[in-house]
Amino acid sequence: MTARILASSAAPVRQSSVRAHNLALALQTVANSANPLSRASISAATGLTRATVSALVDDLIAGGLLTELDPPPRTGAGRPAAGLALASEGPAGLGMEINVDYLAACVVDLGGTVRHRLVEHADQRLSDPPTALGHLARLARRARTLAGDLRLAGAALAVPGLVSPDGVVRVAPNLGWQDVDAAALLREQLGVPVTVDNEANLAALSELRTTGGPSFVYISGEIGIGAGIVLDGVLYRGMRGWSGEIGHLSVHPDGPECRCGARGCLERYAGQEAILRAAGVTELTDIDATAAPALGEAASALGLALAGVVNLLDVDTLVLGGSYAPLVPWLRDGIAAELRRHVLTAELAPITLRAAALGADAAMRGAADAVIRSVLEDPATWLSGAGRT
Amino acid sequence: MTARILASSAAPVRQSSVRAHNLALALQTVANSANPLSRASISAATGLTRATVSALVDDLIAGGLLTELDPPPRTGAGRPAAGLALASEGPAGLGMEINVDYLAACVVDLGGTVRHRLVEHADQRLSDPPTALGHLARLARRARTLAGDLRLAGAALAVPGLVSPDGVVRVAPNLGWQDVDAAALLREQLGVPVTVDNEANLAALSELRTTGGPSFVYISGEIGIGAGIVLDGVLYRGMRGWSGEIGHLSVHPDGPECRCGARGCLERYAGQEAILRAAGVTELTDIDATAAPALGEAASALGLALAGVVNLLDVDTLVLGGSYAPLVPWLRDGIAAELRRHVLTAELAPITLRAAALGADAAMRGAADAVIRSVLEDPATWLSGAGRT
Repeated sequence: MTARILASSAAPVRQSSVRAHNLALALQTVANSANPLSRASISAATGLTRATVSALVDDLIAGGLLTELDPPPRTGAGRPAAGLALASEGPAGLGMEINVDYLAACVVDLGGTVRHRLVEHADQRLSDPPTALGHLARLARRARTLAGDLRLAGAALAVPGLVSPDGVVRVAPNLGWQDVDAAALLREQLGVPVTVDNEANLAALSELRTTGGPSFVYISGEIGIGAGIVLDGVLYRGMRGWSGEIGHLSVHPDGPECRCGARGCLERYAGQEAILRAAGVTELTDIDATAAPALGEAASALGLALAGVVNLLDVDTLVLGGSYAPLVPWLRDGIAAELRRHVLTAELAPITLRAAALGADAAMRGAADAVIRSVLEDPATWLSGAGRT
Repeated sequence: MTARILASSAAPVRQSSVRAHNLALALQTVANSANPLSRASISAATGLTRATVSALVDDLIAGGLLTELDPPPRTGAGRPAAGLALASEGPAGLGMEINVDYLAACVVDLGGTVRHRLVEHADQRLSDPPTALGHLARLARRARTLAGDLRLAGAALAVPGLVSPDGVVRVAPNLGWQDVDAAALLREQLGVPVTVDNEANLAALSELRTTGGPSFVYISGEIGIGAGIVLDGVLYRGMRGWSGEIGHLSVHPDGPECRCGARGCLERYAGQEAILRAAGVTELTDIDATAAPALGEAASALGLALAGVVNLLDVDTLVLGGSYAPLVPWLRDGIAAELRRHVLTAELAPITLRAAALGADAAMRGAADAVIRSVLEDPATWLSGAGRT
């Protein structure tokens, strides 16, 4: 940093943007604290004056974003300060997921608590996209009612496919979808703004917030297989947001045909349907130690594809999520054997292979969290009324 | 940017670091200009005062980094200003490459001109690492002499392997090297600081500087195959600098054994030796249109591996470099067919497949450029004498 750079940053800053920044700063200071905070603690943590903090906190309380908890009993001299916490009855996030064999919706409050979740198992390939999204909207409205009709700051949808920034699902091979404007269809039915993202990306963001990262590849095992690539604490989305399509890495170039049109894709060996078929069961929960040998081909195929990921990206942690998470004990050895065989640096540095911290809800939680984070990062917009529904 | 952030950046700045910053700013302003610049132009471009610029320029001329060119003939009123340019007799960079079948060295001056280059073809697998590096050091000294004994700011080496930050080659499978302290061995023989980097990374950086990027994967075809991943104008090195090991992506899991110990790696199908064998020739320059059909298997294997790269990383440009560059006309159709078949987004967005802008010298040029850039980015260290040899 030099005198010149200081000079150029010293351009006038508008008062409204200073207030917006400071509102976010105060709110996030409370959000990042394990305990309720006093106004004085916020002042100390942020460097803002007591008077400024008080004015900001008053606005955040009036807008329903912060709540004042009863002061703890007196333990020493002086008046105990009231503690500030995120308002559990403040704006909430609606998270939704559509996958090949289920629909899911949850309501998460500002503090990150899941207030209600609903999952409905049904093969979505049997419905056209508007019908499937109509079912999902009904499920979401029910979850909202059961969560106590919190005000929604917005909604987000996780899909197993490639999404454009405006919320159009360009292609979701396992759903058979092409160019479905999921954001518009859901917005119409829910009456709140809706964003759409790839399910593996959202699940990887959940994992990142839960475990802290910093660099890993999250593999989301469902009917299809996706990956979320986290490098140095940041989700790598690719040039158009279409990164991580690990399910269509070629395992055997002359293998069986895949729904995508190619042959021998990873999904044909290690997708949920292939795993159930190999194990001779109809539910993943039926898989136990006796079925482990039957999962050998799936584990090898996964290991081979993941070895390619490590050779290309030089990450040291692989996180198995979605339906893979409970299967890690039966998949681990087969995957590790291929990593040892194919990763050029296998002998130089260990690779951590572990189950995801969150279970099957990771993508839906990631969707709800995305809404919550948008409020925490820009409370001024919410307070101005633009974000209220 | 807010008042708070401004306040915290307003910490005292030491005068010496301001001078170091401004020296770099003035030098880079000249380096980035297509034409010689006057002091007045540097002042206008940087916002530094005329007096400051004059003092900085005097230091840069005295230190041999800038040179004053004769003023152009008068064309109008006033005295024409002398033009400043990077000193062609200033500090130079020594770039070196060791690969399986050749050694190479070049001297590049501050302005980026290659002053001399030497390439020596010989199978390096027949020598132990100190002997091979001894040969390379002799070649480098000869190149330096033939370049007119420019002062060297340093040297850099490109290797086909995985390198640690301190310049130790951890593993180079095709050379048969393991834990070779190439930086120390060369520094001893050359008497200048030496850095070591992966050849595909250095070649990708050359390509980035030549074409501007911003996002592409550079595939370096030699006896081995490496990749340099450039995302948004930045080389992605991976967690330990070991990214891009595309040569060991599995093409056929039960294919022929590779030097790395695994089976069916890309190198076995599309490495230089496989290509020469398929084409029935001993030199790449013997390959022409009549040999194209024989390259079908190599092209398919490359296409399959590159489809995986695109599915994972969502990049839209693939650059074929090294020995692949002249073969692009014969490889293109076979690669493109596999991309169409295996890239999930092939129908949504086109993929550009092109030959590298620089030829076989890309990695060695990248090495020399790395030295030059270190001077341009920190001229103060050079001027203080610490960088001189």
